[in-house]
Amino acid sequence: MSENSEKDCIFCKIIRGEIPCDKVYEDENFFAMLDIHPLNPGHTMLLPKKHVRWVNDYEPFCDYWQTARKLSKIIQKALNPVLVGHSTYGLGVPHAHIHLIPKYENDAHPNGFNADHTLNLSKEEMKSIAEKIRKEIK
Amino acid sequence: MSENSEKDCIFCKIIRGEIPCDKVYEDENFFAMLDIHPLNPGHTMLLPKKHVRWVNDYEPFCDYWQTARKLSKIIQKALNPVLVGHSTYGLGVPHAHIHLIPKYENDAHPNGFNADHTLNLSKEEMKSIAEKIRKEIK
Repeated sequence: MSENSEKDCIFCKIIRGEIPCDKVYEDENFFAMLDIHPLNPGHTMLLPKKHVRWVNDYEPFCDYWQTARKLSKIIQKALNPVLVGHSTYGLGVPHAHIHLIPKYENDAHPNGFNADHTLNLSKEEMKSIAEKIRKEIK
Repeated sequence: MSENSEKDCIFCKIIRGEIPCDKVYEDENFFAMLDIHPLNPGHTMLLPKKHVRWVNDYEPFCDYWQTARKLSKIIQKALNPVLVGHSTYGLGVPHAHIHLIPKYENDAHPNGFNADHTLNLSKEEMKSIAEKIRKEIK
């Protein structure tokens, strides 16, 4: 569970535009992109722009979850899944991120999300999904 | 994805004390108990006492996540896992619940939580875990 600095952090680099991603949302304090190892199409990660290690350490904490809720509703509208669930785990990249995971009928997650079931989506599929989500943002 | 009434809801029955559980926390608005199908020892569900279908529909929404954060810190102190993650899914019981899931070294969840990997803990083990968590609550 390595700590790292803002300079070396892969998520900070993505936020700064130094590494490409399929961005779906950005505001003054938060940034969201598709997960490159999606559990389902539309699997999104919501990051604070501030380099914070854990979701629970971000302040104002409520703003973070309010933004997650707002973005879940946008994903729900864009992709029409059964639901959009949330998950925090945190041993991948040491920069806080909330997973927003759409759940679909007959997917690989009938009993809850199974992190070992990831999909390989093409670049085109990822771009198309990100665009659908962005279109729902007023 | 059935809707149900407060009268028939299994979580409402547990909150009212009509069905037993391994309770770990209770305040005016929230109730927490061990999940009977734990992904790991100490896997807890935090419920609003109000019968609400989805986590995202509970108001005041921030209070719910603040309480989840508070309880995560208590579980962290009681059981000393690597971290306590969160998950919302919602197709099990149609009463809002946030899963608080401890992650341990060398458990069955190295890449994120896998909902298909549940444990069978004895009644005694469950009682002992719940007691450890309750002891950390001031």
